[in-house]
Amino acid sequence: MGKVTPRVGIIMGSDSDLPVMKSAAEFLEMFDVPHEVRIVSAHRTPELMFSYASSAHERGIQVIIAGAGGAAHLPGMVAALTPVPVVGVPVRASTLDGIDSLLSIVQMPRGVPVATVAVNNATNAGLLAVRILSVADDNLRSRMSQYLEDQKEMVLEKGEKLQKEGWKSYLDS
Amino acid sequence: MGKVTPRVGIIMGSDSDLPVMKSAAEFLEMFDVPHEVRIVSAHRTPELMFSYASSAHERGIQVIIAGAGGAAHLPGMVAALTPVPVVGVPVRASTLDGIDSLLSIVQMPRGVPVATVAVNNATNAGLLAVRILSVADDNLRSRMSQYLEDQKEMVLEKGEKLQKEGWKSYLDS
Amino acid sequence: MGKVTPRVGIIMGSDSDLPVMKSAAEFLEMFDVPHEVRIVSAHRTPELMFSYASSAHERGIQVIIAGAGGAAHLPGMVAALTPVPVVGVPVRASTLDGIDSLLSIVQMPRGVPVATVAVNNATNAGLLAVRILSVADDNLRSRMSQYLEDQKEMVLEKGEKLQKEGWKSYLDS
Amino acid sequence: MGKVTPRVGIIMGSDSDLPVMKSAAEFLEMFDVPHEVRIVSAHRTPELMFSYASSAHERGIQVIIAGAGGAAHLPGMVAALTPVPVVGVPVRASTLDGIDSLLSIVQMPRGVPVATVAVNNATNAGLLAVRILSVADDNLRSRMSQYLEDQKEMVLEKGEKLQKEGWKSYLDS
Amino acid sequence: MGKVTPRVGIIMGSDSDLPVMKSAAEFLEMFDVPHEVRIVSAHRTPELMFSYASSAHERGIQVIIAGAGGAAHLPGMVAALTPVPVVGVPVRASTLDGIDSLLSIVQMPRGVPVATVAVNNATNAGLLAVRILSVADDNLRSRMSQYLEDQKEMVLEKGEKLQKEGWKSYLDS
Amino acid sequence: MGKVTPRVGIIMGSDSDLPVMKSAAEFLEMFDVPHEVRIVSAHRTPELMFSYASSAHERGIQVIIAGAGGAAHLPGMVAALTPVPVVGVPVRASTLDGIDSLLSIVQMPRGVPVATVAVNNATNAGLLAVRILSVADDNLRSRMSQYLEDQKEMVLEKGEKLQKEGWKSYLDS
Amino acid sequence: MGKVTPRVGIIMGSDSDLPVMKSAAEFLEMFDVPHEVRIVSAHRTPELMFSYASSAHERGIQVIIAGAGGAAHLPGMVAALTPVPVVGVPVRASTLDGIDSLLSIVQMPRGVPVATVAVNNATNAGLLAVRILSVADDNLRSRMSQYLEDQKEMVLEKGEKLQKEGWKSYLDS
Amino acid sequence: MGKVTPRVGIIMGSDSDLPVMKSAAEFLEMFDVPHEVRIVSAHRTPELMFSYASSAHERGIQVIIAGAGGAAHLPGMVAALTPVPVVGVPVRASTLDGIDSLLSIVQMPRGVPVATVAVNNATNAGLLAVRILSVADDNLRSRMSQYLEDQKEMVLEKGEKLQKEGWKSYLDS
Repeated sequence: MGKVTPRVGIIMGSDSDLPVMKSAAEFLEMFDVPHEVRIVSAHRTPELMFSYASSAHERGIQVIIAGAGGAAHLPGMVAALTPVPVVGVPVRASTLDGIDSLLSIVQMPRGVPVATVAVNNATNAGLLAVRILSVADDNLRSRMSQYLEDQKEMVLEKGEKLQKEGWKSYLDS
Repeated sequence: MGKVTPRVGIIMGSDSDLPVMKSAAEFLEMFDVPHEVRIVSAHRTPELMFSYASSAHERGIQVIIAGAGGAAHLPGMVAALTPVPVVGVPVRASTLDGIDSLLSIVQMPRGVPVATVAVNNATNAGLLAVRILSVADDNLRSRMSQYLEDQKEMVLEKGEKLQKEGWKSYLDS
Repeated sequence: MGKVTPRVGIIMGSDSDLPVMKSAAEFLEMFDVPHEVRIVSAHRTPELMFSYASSAHERGIQVIIAGAGGAAHLPGMVAALTPVPVVGVPVRASTLDGIDSLLSIVQMPRGVPVATVAVNNATNAGLLAVRILSVADDNLRSRMSQYLEDQKEMVLEKGEKLQKEGWKSYLDS
Repeated sequence: MGKVTPRVGIIMGSDSDLPVMKSAAEFLEMFDVPHEVRIVSAHRTPELMFSYASSAHERGIQVIIAGAGGAAHLPGMVAALTPVPVVGVPVRASTLDGIDSLLSIVQMPRGVPVATVAVNNATNAGLLAVRILSVADDNLRSRMSQYLEDQKEMVLEKGEKLQKEGWKSYLDS
Repeated sequence: MGKVTPRVGIIMGSDSDLPVMKSAAEFLEMFDVPHEVRIVSAHRTPELMFSYASSAHERGIQVIIAGAGGAAHLPGMVAALTPVPVVGVPVRASTLDGIDSLLSIVQMPRGVPVATVAVNNATNAGLLAVRILSVADDNLRSRMSQYLEDQKEMVLEKGEKLQKEGWKSYLDS
Repeated sequence: MGKVTPRVGIIMGSDSDLPVMKSAAEFLEMFDVPHEVRIVSAHRTPELMFSYASSAHERGIQVIIAGAGGAAHLPGMVAALTPVPVVGVPVRASTLDGIDSLLSIVQMPRGVPVATVAVNNATNAGLLAVRILSVADDNLRSRMSQYLEDQKEMVLEKGEKLQKEGWKSYLDS
Repeated sequence: MGKVTPRVGIIMGSDSDLPVMKSAAEFLEMFDVPHEVRIVSAHRTPELMFSYASSAHERGIQVIIAGAGGAAHLPGMVAALTPVPVVGVPVRASTLDGIDSLLSIVQMPRGVPVATVAVNNATNAGLLAVRILSVADDNLRSRMSQYLEDQKEMVLEKGEKLQKEGWKSYLDS
Repeated sequence: MGKVTPRVGIIMGSDSDLPVMKSAAEFLEMFDVPHEVRIVSAHRTPELMFSYASSAHERGIQVIIAGAGGAAHLPGMVAALTPVPVVGVPVRASTLDGIDSLLSIVQMPRGVPVATVAVNNATNAGLLAVRILSVADDNLRSRMSQYLEDQKEMVLEKGEKLQKEGWKSYLDS
């Protein structure tokens, strides 16, 4: 990440979200997309959130991935403060199985969209950021097509193994 | 309201919330608590929200009542920006029957509480503000006690009417 | 729209979704983003869905907005068939208040993201598409910033009117 | 399974669904119904899904059992591509306790039915396939009647044991 | 229907379910499948339910479609009393938007499956019955394939109209 | 239990419900109410369920406690077959946290009530049976009053201990 | 009702619950069970609730039916104050479709049961009260058996009409 | 706590709620707010609840924090019996993940508010009590502002550490 200007900002309300959110970083790394990982809390560091979101575009950030749990306000607030597309990751908190995080992020009012992915699915947040960047980056787009192909291959291989071995052996192996 | 310094700030994200939120104002008026009614949107006027919340205490605001619907971020964000107690009113939006508004407001993370009332129940937000102010205002506390008594009387009267008339006549009347 | 190559494809499973989905088209029109509006049903025209999604990129489509209700499979299936970013709009069907549509769209497995917006909120789908395109389009980004400013102005004006008139007159007017 | 033409196709989106879906295979085995077990992912192998579903009838498949979790699109998409009856098994994913899988499978729009069973209940999917085949297979129907009888016997025996021993001993044994 | 032996039995707990359940009859009629429509209540006519379900197979009934609302026990109880495949239609009752009906029908324990369709979707119940019968009826299967084609044509035609006219004219027409 | 005619019948669909349902038996034992514990499955032993429910009153059973999970039909079906009051215990099954069991039991249609208690709360089913029997049994009623007193005493004692020790010591002890 | 000592007390938190709760009274009237209808609010007349519940048994009340909506505390609080069986009716309030009322009534902790019926189903509350009283009242029990028979007859008649006329004429008539 | 008159009363229905509720006490201690911790059960010690709530104000209690699970009636009943502000903590019970506790506490009818915080979040209940008291206590208000600052510092430090170390090292440390 170091010296290269990050194109994607991954932010989260607390370091306790990191074990979930790291998948976004891993996938951006896999696609060689420069990115940064930051703790920015809507509720505990509102000023930082304001300055981070307001300056993101000028700093070269093209997509923001924001993860939060419970009454998850970070993605929506950031989206209100920047014209940059914001991807929201509902992180499952200790109760209610993630439904509170999901609704707090996805049910944004008219005017300020958050691109919401599945509960705890930071992988898809990373992949969505790559898709968004690939709109103007043919190389990234090709690699995303390749990624979809690779996924297909992997599933097909497993499928062949299953057909060859039968499910009983497959489960034992 | 006019010249008196308001003690309670009633804010809402949109004027479409006013038909619900006005009950808070009505009850504060009933208890002669000076208050103001403002439109402050977390998503559309984030800077106003910041300045409103940050300066509320200095302006003499002692309780903030914030209503919002859907991914309702206003109450929680305001609570993050002021030490003043914040009462949250989940306003039912056009889908999901208010459960999104409720969870977005009540499920705040440790550190920043929002005093949440029932969906669409701005009446109780007003009454809760009065209870909070009454902690240091014996007159208000007496009036709140009296209000509870009046409520009781009203129910008892209806109850007597029902017993006297029987439920069939009661429903017809 | 006519002769200009569309950059955004708005698709929906049925013409009964059009009254909801049209807001996406309206906002793209507002931002002068060339787009097309098509009926593509995952369940009734699966071959069309396949060919539409597979050829979208080659046809110049840079973002796909897909709306569907109930067991809403269109957005996710399209996302599986293209590297282009896909925005999903959960359309409320006749029962369950949109929660089925929402979960069917947002809860995508790892590997294939759908950028989900709120139930019935095609406005935000349109705005999200603009944000995505603005990653490589400074003009669009400026206009999105301006749009956020305009929203703010509109709310501030209403807020001033409310303060000046008081909520009782405001509701009457 | 081997050389006999399979009458039932059991498919699932990922090998991680196999521990749940294997019960369908076990019950088909118990009823000597030739079947195959395949990995076919709607999102990662959409072309395979298309060819599998479209050719199923010609290959002699009479019932398809499809299991998937989260935004579970496999059963509905397969049903759109074949006139063969499709049984859907909602597999519980890591969050939301299976309600997303259930709604994504059962809430199909008019025109394309999926015969949905309970969350994680692949046993019932296998039994439903047998019932469907028994419509034109008296032997299978008799065996299904016998299966219901056997179930009854097993419960009655347990019931007698419980009555004889009393619940305290029963729980200890 | 009259003298021909019915192959499908459509039953419901109350005549108030008829406006929903009639779609199943309409579709069976469309496919020329002989059927009967009966009121059989699990809770109010349990003996009739027993005799109906137990004798269905002998009477030539090959598929039973059962609709019920609230604590909807009819489909599951009937399935326990016959080896014939049972299709369950969750009918939305006056509260809870159909989620009670759905869960009461779909969440059957291991051993007794009910092929559940979407809330209020008796159309799909009829179509599922046709698919089930088509397992041993090439004519029905061809007609089901044709039905899927017809659906496709209808959607394609609407799609073409929409593309030709544009969505504004389309909505006005 | 043995020779005394049981006044309360505790039935459940499977011996896997016994660890939950045994609390009902324990409380009836505590109140010296003769009872029996039986396995009666609506779905696997429908005939037994019919005969059990239909003959319950003649056998001297005055209250039936029925526990079941998932699509829980036992309490409602039994209530349809007897004029005796039926208490329903929603047993939590392996998915959906008991909400399916609860709705399947409590949402009975007009005409056939089931007295539903909380999920997994067979204790309250036992206590409710005692309250019902106490309507015509002064001794039982006195003992129920005493039980409420004893509960109160137990809580008051704990409360005093907590006040005396402070919560830190209390938690350590 | 007048001079006869009431055996069943029907109470509700507000006269706005009366249109729902009156069905309980109608059914008790039908079974000639003396009863009273009262407004007793847990939240607005807590002292009345205490005295009502505490004295109910001495006044000859044998069953209490309590209806309430939202955070519905009346049934549970009354059950805590009397050994008499309490039937709870969850009344649907203006939001959340009755699920709040249901859970607030049914999910009572161990020790204090409330016999909960379906949302808004005061009919079943009345019928459950009759069943409870019939434990010691052979006449009532016979009439309840007769009621079940009458219900059956009514359904059978409708069923015959439907079979004779066919569903199309039936719906038209 | 000892001899100082408590300003905040922390009450809970059972000592099993203490591990959750103790956080409220810890935070009041941190802010040097005199408080008491009591077991007061709405259902098992209703008289104590009445006397506790009714006398709270006279005893100098200025805020009551009440925690309860399941059909959680304690906060609402207490609020009905005192003009003092009541903070409700929904404690997650053994089933339904706290949604029953939350709705039972927050959905209070007009007239009697409960200031509800997130499920199991007694920390926020404590902090809300401090905010309420700070309305008339400048010292407390300053300390609350300081607390918000301290929280911010803590998050900022973690954020700096994360930026310096990178997320991989951060997670390993």
